[in-house]
Amino acid sequence: MAASLADLEKAQRREIDTPSSQCLRFGPDQALPLDAGGTLANWQIAYETYGTLNADRSNAILICHALTGDQYAASRNPVTGKPGWWTMLVGPGKPVDTDRFFVICANVLGGCMGTTGPASTNPETGQPYALTMPVVTIRDMVRAQARLVDHLGIETLFAVVGGSMGGMQVLQWAALFPERVFSAVPIATGARHSSQNIAFHEVGRQAVMADPDWRGGSYLADGTRPSKGLAVARMAAHITYMSDMSLHQKFGRNLQDREALTFGFDADFQIESYLRHQGMTFVDRFDANSYLYVTRAMDYFDLAAEHDGVLSKAFLHTPTRFCVMSFTSDWLFPTSESKAVVRALNAAAANVSFVEISSDRGHDAFLLDEPEMFRTVRGFLTGAAAARGIAGPGGA
Amino acid sequence: MAASLADLEKAQRREIDTPSSQCLRFGPDQALPLDAGGTLANWQIAYETYGTLNADRSNAILICHALTGDQYAASRNPVTGKPGWWTMLVGPGKPVDTDRFFVICANVLGGCMGTTGPASTNPETGQPYALTMPVVTIRDMVRAQARLVDHLGIETLFAVVGGSMGGMQVLQWAALFPERVFSAVPIATGARHSSQNIAFHEVGRQAVMADPDWRGGSYLADGTRPSKGLAVARMAAHITYMSDMSLHQKFGRNLQDREALTFGFDADFQIESYLRHQGMTFVDRFDANSYLYVTRAMDYFDLAAEHDGVLSKAFLHTPTRFCVMSFTSDWLFPTSESKAVVRALNAAAANVSFVEISSDRGHDAFLLDEPEMFRTVRGFLTGAAAARGIAGPGGA
Repeated sequence: MAASLADLEKAQRREIDTPSSQCLRFGPDQALPLDAGGTLANWQIAYETYGTLNADRSNAILICHALTGDQYAASRNPVTGKPGWWTMLVGPGKPVDTDRFFVICANVLGGCMGTTGPASTNPETGQPYALTMPVVTIRDMVRAQARLVDHLGIETLFAVVGGSMGGMQVLQWAALFPERVFSAVPIATGARHSSQNIAFHEVGRQAVMADPDWRGGSYLADGTRPSKGLAVARMAAHITYMSDMSLHQKFGRNLQDREALTFGFDADFQIESYLRHQGMTFVDRFDANSYLYVTRAMDYFDLAAEHDGVLSKAFLHTPTRFCVMSFTSDWLFPTSESKAVVRALNAAAANVSFVEISSDRGHDAFLLDEPEMFRTVRGFLTGAAAARGIAGPGGA
Repeated sequence: MAASLADLEKAQRREIDTPSSQCLRFGPDQALPLDAGGTLANWQIAYETYGTLNADRSNAILICHALTGDQYAASRNPVTGKPGWWTMLVGPGKPVDTDRFFVICANVLGGCMGTTGPASTNPETGQPYALTMPVVTIRDMVRAQARLVDHLGIETLFAVVGGSMGGMQVLQWAALFPERVFSAVPIATGARHSSQNIAFHEVGRQAVMADPDWRGGSYLADGTRPSKGLAVARMAAHITYMSDMSLHQKFGRNLQDREALTFGFDADFQIESYLRHQGMTFVDRFDANSYLYVTRAMDYFDLAAEHDGVLSKAFLHTPTRFCVMSFTSDWLFPTSESKAVVRALNAAAANVSFVEISSDRGHDAFLLDEPEMFRTVRGFLTGAAAARGIAGPGGA
């Protein structure tokens, strides 16, 4: 039974403060220091886990999600009712094998699925934070995840794995806590957000902020929603997740439910109808201010800048073993960005392997059925698990 | 003395019905048939000319402008006060040499600089057409230009030259009036608008139409302007006109007038400030409904579809000689689109040369200082002029 969009939105609103997933709450004495300065008190982090932590707590894998992802990597999303976004990669017998590994996935700081973000209720005012929420960074997201990992009693993660913004978190984890990351799998990502990528994000933010229903960010208190602006932002972003080739193959210039052009501004072409649908469904599962915050976190990401402009310094003497992956048709995070990471890791004498995967599907390939990606992750984790002495599935 | 943005907008509004340039008006007995069906009565076309038409009227070159261009290819724009948009290519002694050729450039049908478009006053109502203006196609634009060429007493154009949407018009001219086009120079264009390009245009249109001040298109009558929506549309489009490399070289991650990140949503990065500026200045020189109409015309363009899906049929037995040009870093109209045109011309046994120009500047390269483009245009036109028996500059 399909839920109405209004029902979806209600369900999403509920998740903000009272997530269906596990949720760890930090009191005033456990405030989180932020890169923006100051701290965030009374914050919470929502997460899911899969599999079982072994006796020596050595088999934990942290999955980091992308821009509009969530903690439901391998379990049903309570808002949309859809399966987890990475069920092809994560699960029993899958490349990230939950029969063997203990998998953790948390909603990012600034998000809207239970971890504190601009839509969350500020306990000091009883009102949504809106723009009073401090701007957060990828490093802040990682610090928040580290608190969760502490709470779970895990000293060293066996692996940190993620694509796109998730991959940024992987790199940040390795740079910030090298001793806590045995292996790292950054996919379809880069060590900084490029000028073009900042540009696309800025267009999206301007689209949201141009919507009069955004109301300077206070739409939740005012009972409005900047749905049109957020939909336009999502439409623009969605184009960047696909390749010219995949759009051509999937839609070409095919018309939508019609025999001929209508000479009007309705959706004549399937690609128009598809994009409008992407925009409309997005606004009911995502908070507009969260969109501003997480895009800003990506824009601010520049790992070299944290190390005198020299990326290799971020990884000097790193004990982590890396597996870097990119996709040939990804123009948002092209292979050149991954190669820059690999060069820096090589310069830091790190243990690194790199795979460029042939795919026509653009940036979104990391979320799709890409057998070479699955084989690469499985192979890398199997080798790393042997090096770490983690028992095979079934304890073998 | 810099004009204020409000002054610019007033000046632009004046140009819509009463252009500063030459303007040819067609009465009710000279209605223009449209691809949408029906005709457009009481329409006008605004144009500029440069140089002198020779005695046998054989030296006329028609320049076709791109999406937001205008007739001021080589003369000062009366609204912005800026030099013509193609003064590097067109003028005395330039590759399109106005000492030798008679150059015509007209505002496109659907535009907002004097040729009839949605902002024009409908003489039957005394009100702006707004969305009652029929949707026009590239072919309609060409038919309108042909009426102007008729009026000027020119049977055969020596050349038709244009980039981007201008290049679409060039191809359409060659397909529709092969005997009237001695030579054709389509630059940075394609014989159809791709799925990805339609997608970007649709984002722009949705941004305009999401602006409550658009008012279903009737903003002129209502005294409002969908400036925020149109600015977002322009920002998104502008990214597609540049290359990842040119954005990186021009802006990188440089900050705008500040020492450090501000942890807010102001324009921290130069690229953000630049894009906002592009958006803001655009809305004062361009009409929002015109933007909908000309983007739609590009989306609808598919020359093969007019010929049973076989592009070469558009050019069978063509007497026109072609010079096709593309730029290596243009991802909006990549070289593959030009090559498809060249293949079709070859299959039609046309006289065609093709040059792919190395440039980091993306699609906008055709508007910039690109010496190889200039050399190619000059060489091609010189050879074609010899074939056509046009005297050299100074009558030599």
